[in-house]
Amino acid sequence: MLNTLFRPRSIAVMGASNNTFSIGNRVVKNLLAHEFKGRIYPINLKEPEILGLRAYPSILDVPEPVDIGMIAVKSTLVPQMVEDCGKKGVKFVIIHTAGFREMGGEGAKLEDQLLENAKKYGVRVYGPNCQGIMNSDPEVSVYANFTFTPMRPGRASILAQSGGVAELLNLNLRKMGSGFRMYASQGNASDVSTNELLDFMGNDPETRTIIMHIESMKDTPEFIECCRRIGRDKALLAIRTGRTTAAAKAVSSHTGSMMQEDSLTDTIFEHAGVMRFDTTEEMISAAYAFASQPVPAGPNVAIVANAGGPGIMAIDECVGNGLKLAKLSEETKARLRAGLIPEAYVENPIDVAATARAEHFALTLSCLEDDPGVDSILITMVTPPFVDCEAVGRAIAETAAKLTKPLVCVVMTNENWASTVETIKGAGIPVFDFPEAGSRVVAAMARYAEIRKHLAEQPAGAPGNKAKAQKILAGAPGEFISQTAAFDVLSGYEIPVARTVKLSGERLPRGLKYPVVLKVDSEAVVHKSDVGGVALNLARPAALKKVHAEMAAHFPGADFVVQEQCAQGTEIIVGLKREPGVGAVIMFGMGGIHVEAMKDVSFRMAPLSQEGAARMIRGIRSLPLLQGFRGIPPADIAAIQRLLISVSQMAVDLPEIVEMDLNPVIVYPEGQGLKVVDVRIRKQQQAQQIQAQSV
Amino acid sequence: MLNTLFRPRSIAVMGASNNTFSIGNRVVKNLLAHEFKGRIYPINLKEPEILGLRAYPSILDVPEPVDIGMIAVKSTLVPQMVEDCGKKGVKFVIIHTAGFREMGGEGAKLEDQLLENAKKYGVRVYGPNCQGIMNSDPEVSVYANFTFTPMRPGRASILAQSGGVAELLNLNLRKMGSGFRMYASQGNASDVSTNELLDFMGNDPETRTIIMHIESMKDTPEFIECCRRIGRDKALLAIRTGRTTAAAKAVSSHTGSMMQEDSLTDTIFEHAGVMRFDTTEEMISAAYAFASQPVPAGPNVAIVANAGGPGIMAIDECVGNGLKLAKLSEETKARLRAGLIPEAYVENPIDVAATARAEHFALTLSCLEDDPGVDSILITMVTPPFVDCEAVGRAIAETAAKLTKPLVCVVMTNENWASTVETIKGAGIPVFDFPEAGSRVVAAMARYAEIRKHLAEQPAGAPGNKAKAQKILAGAPGEFISQTAAFDVLSGYEIPVARTVKLSGERLPRGLKYPVVLKVDSEAVVHKSDVGGVALNLARPAALKKVHAEMAAHFPGADFVVQEQCAQGTEIIVGLKREPGVGAVIMFGMGGIHVEAMKDVSFRMAPLSQEGAARMIRGIRSLPLLQGFRGIPPADIAAIQRLLISVSQMAVDLPEIVEMDLNPVIVYPEGQGLKVVDVRIRKQQQAQQIQAQSV
Repeated sequence: MLNTLFRPRSIAVMGASNNTFSIGNRVVKNLLAHEFKGRIYPINLKEPEILGLRAYPSILDVPEPVDIGMIAVKSTLVPQMVEDCGKKGVKFVIIHTAGFREMGGEGAKLEDQLLENAKKYGVRVYGPNCQGIMNSDPEVSVYANFTFTPMRPGRASILAQSGGVAELLNLNLRKMGSGFRMYASQGNASDVSTNELLDFMGNDPETRTIIMHIESMKDTPEFIECCRRIGRDKALLAIRTGRTTAAAKAVSSHTGSMMQEDSLTDTIFEHAGVMRFDTTEEMISAAYAFASQPVPAGPNVAIVANAGGPGIMAIDECVGNGLKLAKLSEETKARLRAGLIPEAYVENPIDVAATARAEHFALTLSCLEDDPGVDSILITMVTPPFVDCEAVGRAIAETAAKLTKPLVCVVMTNENWASTVETIKGAGIPVFDFPEAGSRVVAAMARYAEIRKHLAEQPAGAPGNKAKAQKILAGAPGEFISQTAAFDVLSGYEIPVARTVKLSGERLPRGLKYPVVLKVDSEAVVHKSDVGGVALNLARPAALKKVHAEMAAHFPGADFVVQEQCAQGTEIIVGLKREPGVGAVIMFGMGGIHVEAMKDVSFRMAPLSQEGAARMIRGIRSLPLLQGFRGIPPADIAAIQRLLISVSQMAVDLPEIVEMDLNPVIVYPEGQGLKVVDVRIRKQQQAQQIQAQSV
Repeated sequence: MLNTLFRPRSIAVMGASNNTFSIGNRVVKNLLAHEFKGRIYPINLKEPEILGLRAYPSILDVPEPVDIGMIAVKSTLVPQMVEDCGKKGVKFVIIHTAGFREMGGEGAKLEDQLLENAKKYGVRVYGPNCQGIMNSDPEVSVYANFTFTPMRPGRASILAQSGGVAELLNLNLRKMGSGFRMYASQGNASDVSTNELLDFMGNDPETRTIIMHIESMKDTPEFIECCRRIGRDKALLAIRTGRTTAAAKAVSSHTGSMMQEDSLTDTIFEHAGVMRFDTTEEMISAAYAFASQPVPAGPNVAIVANAGGPGIMAIDECVGNGLKLAKLSEETKARLRAGLIPEAYVENPIDVAATARAEHFALTLSCLEDDPGVDSILITMVTPPFVDCEAVGRAIAETAAKLTKPLVCVVMTNENWASTVETIKGAGIPVFDFPEAGSRVVAAMARYAEIRKHLAEQPAGAPGNKAKAQKILAGAPGEFISQTAAFDVLSGYEIPVARTVKLSGERLPRGLKYPVVLKVDSEAVVHKSDVGGVALNLARPAALKKVHAEMAAHFPGADFVVQEQCAQGTEIIVGLKREPGVGAVIMFGMGGIHVEAMKDVSFRMAPLSQEGAARMIRGIRSLPLLQGFRGIPPADIAAIQRLLISVSQMAVDLPEIVEMDLNPVIVYPEGQGLKVVDVRIRKQQQAQQIQAQSV
């Protein structure tokens, strides 16, 4: 439990100093400036007093108990300081000093040493190479951090690996007029982990949203579980840096961590219910709103403008980001027509006109609150010099207090109307400078409403003969199991497959319906059709026999299977891959060489819900090809959904499968199902450990 | 010429008033507050004095000449005011009053009336329903506008249809620390047009960049020509609103104008060399930089950071937006290693480390200036409390004065370091809050460098028998010309076509190589293959004869053509369409039903340059399908390029062609060319006028 880290009663600062340009000085100054409610003990070998506080030569000389030891001394001295903290009974050390694992070699050794010392005494380590933590709760008011932005209480908590980025988030939240609840910038995160911090912030009732900056992910299954739990109640917002290869290289030299491929990030975030943002500014703009506004019930936004052009911009951005323009009820329109000035335009967006006064804004907000077709409200206003804008601001603030729907304001004005803006912000209404920014924030809120629904969905089950599948998998000698065995596994999960028989020696199997297909079945041959390992359209036994003889010569020692040739249809691909340290990822895409070249696929983590499977199908660009087009009937999308759920069930039941490709699967028109034509299953090798929780 | 509009010597204000909440009051106040260098004559029937100035009952009573009449009276009185202005010899009227064409019906009539009055006297009309103009040139200092944001001189000019958006642009440019040169918010733009204003701003030597907000486009060919001329020297930045259907509907009620389809906007902007932005904020951020910084020579950016995380963000955004990380020379690295502190990381991005001082920043900038591999420099810095950041700011400002390369700064700080930020901004260096914002600005500058190159490209010519084509087109009876005639036109432009012969009566043509294809050739049948109008693979004359008889029964009265069946290859589509009021647009995409459903096509306006044609080919998502993939050889992309150039030549030579589809064109492997298999040409009807300049 991190309670003591964020609610310490006493802090000792090792390396406390009277030198203004030192971290040890800054840290004590910050604790004092923010009126830390606990006791502060500067530790300095020589100085008797630091910044007016009595200093001690060693933490061991402090007469009272110490909760946290903040360490800002030379890196080589850090292990000894940790040892001292251990002896003193300190609960947490926050190590600001750099020069550890991020430097490799000696630094890594030093980090191991300090961790060992900490472990010996049960001291938890925060950092090293970190900025520190803060908690703006007025009961604690702890600024255990060497950075420079003042702390302003708010209801968004900040969790960032990089100190610079944590600072950036805090700085700009504050510039917007908001603040934070808790703040953690972790640096090397050698002991106290992102997941622990996330869990702690998630359990804090005063935190309404958490903004994260992620460079690298550890313990991903735990991260996902934690996010899914928190996300039902609080919006989790994240940016992930190191997306490009160039940046990934720099991340590795920044924190010494390994990068996961960025495409996985989206898949993980989707499953975890984390909202990913493209830019820091968009993320904190959304956080500013989540911190004070309720979550909208749906995507229907009403826009209120007193200038046409910005209102139109807002429509573009709202609709372009997935919102719908709410359809105003007849009652709303009648009330507005009666109460607004004649020049007003009573449709959504409502143009109250530049000359609209306070009462017109108030009336409009009240009407929209009452209109069941409206989920959220966006005001985009200028401050016309011929209107009493102060009164407009007050009217918005007062009416907003009675709203149960989220309200976001864009006020396009200058410093002369600063107090109008402050009046609106003072009522807890987020205010932005640009119509696009406000629109995107409302869209983000609606997106979170959607995520909450997704998190409540139940994993879908599918029937499957788990015992049989396990037996087949266990019985297979190599890493890849044979085609026929793989088809048996699929059949056990009620997945429709093309009838496939192993060829034994020269004898042809009986009872096959011709034409048939002959395929080589060998681990060594991955792209069979590229190397002449597939013969289609063999119309009778003689042809099969002849081609078999030729192929056997071409692939000496290989096995072969014969398959009934399936009718043509739309080809798709479904895959399953167990990503190390992450979990099972299901892939879906259109088949065929073309779409393979275009990389148009969608990914989801197992287990899938019914709705998740449906979204996964809708997630490819080439969806129109499945929906029917000029003479081609719609494909059996319901059958694809069933197939995805079955694969999800296999991912849950059979951790021994590390990779599976169903490629191609032929999908027939609506109601006519599908057939798996080729399958490749790779199973866990003996040496690899199977972790059930990594599903 | 608009010189008098932006450099008036005297202004009369009709509707001038002492009532603070009136436009007529505000306008006089604005002229006074900004110390207009000319004379101001308030016009008011009753008041002898307005805001300390002598007022006149009518403009006709003003004893001296008047350049501009600003009109802010009731809409029904406006035509009379215009008449008075005409009598007085006024050059321009700026009409603020609303209630004209944007209201339809009576309003439109009133607008016609005032325009007629103006025309009678040669008065030019700006507006109506408009905010007005400004010119910050200190010699003029004219704020002929009723809005509220103070005027700050700068080198970006603002051209916006919507008053609210013009305000938004000005407001936020100013918040960033920049200003504007000229400002025009046009409203209904009944007489003085966007193109005239653009041309005027383009000719102003003090304007370095023009930011535009466009809701609807008029006189597009002239707009394009004007932009192409200005764009070689000044960056043209634009946002276009009304992208979504919902917004388009609102635009139409906002200004009463018709919308062009939004996809055309991108094509027009591309040809015009206008940079389109997604958000207002990104556009004015770029304008802020263009106004003071040189244009980079290329895409190679060097990033300088004193905090790791934000530096990594900058890489992501730079690379993600088309920039390249500059490769530092060995000399640069050696100089930096010798001069920076040991913790510094001497690669791009250069991490000078949090403790870097003024001299380290100065050295780094100097080294990057000297490094020929660097085109632009981006600094992302925090302001560590243990560093003399004021000195860092001064060092950046001083070194920047010697730079010939563009420099953009991101300073992540708070109000305590406001003077550091001011020092940097004071040197004309644009400063942003977010690494993403700074990165996108540098990317926009590199994009403009690219656009300048495009604008210098020459239209590519292609050989063509124009006279023969014109004769064929003139001779065709209907709107669509026959297949064989169309193929003749193509052949005249040396476009390879499949050999195609018209079937006359029952007699089969001689000398054809079988197999052949039989096709119906009729205006009424557009998707021939969907309705059984195409028979492939007819191996001999008998088969052709039989199928012909069947088809003739199915399509009574239709013509038929026989075509040698072409070998298989990759199918593409090329189209030409003369967009009314815009010009000739060429379309290119992959063929086949699949890609048709996916709408993966690229558009360019004619005439094409060689490079433009190449970019057009690279502009489709499915480009990989042409580049060769797993056993499929690369297609003859050079032949496609030749084809596009020929089509461009046809667009120039043959304005009578309003639409042409080459669908499909079969492309063979590299060096083996292509063949047009089907063509559809629609020509101008008699009633339509052909305008040569609309190419």
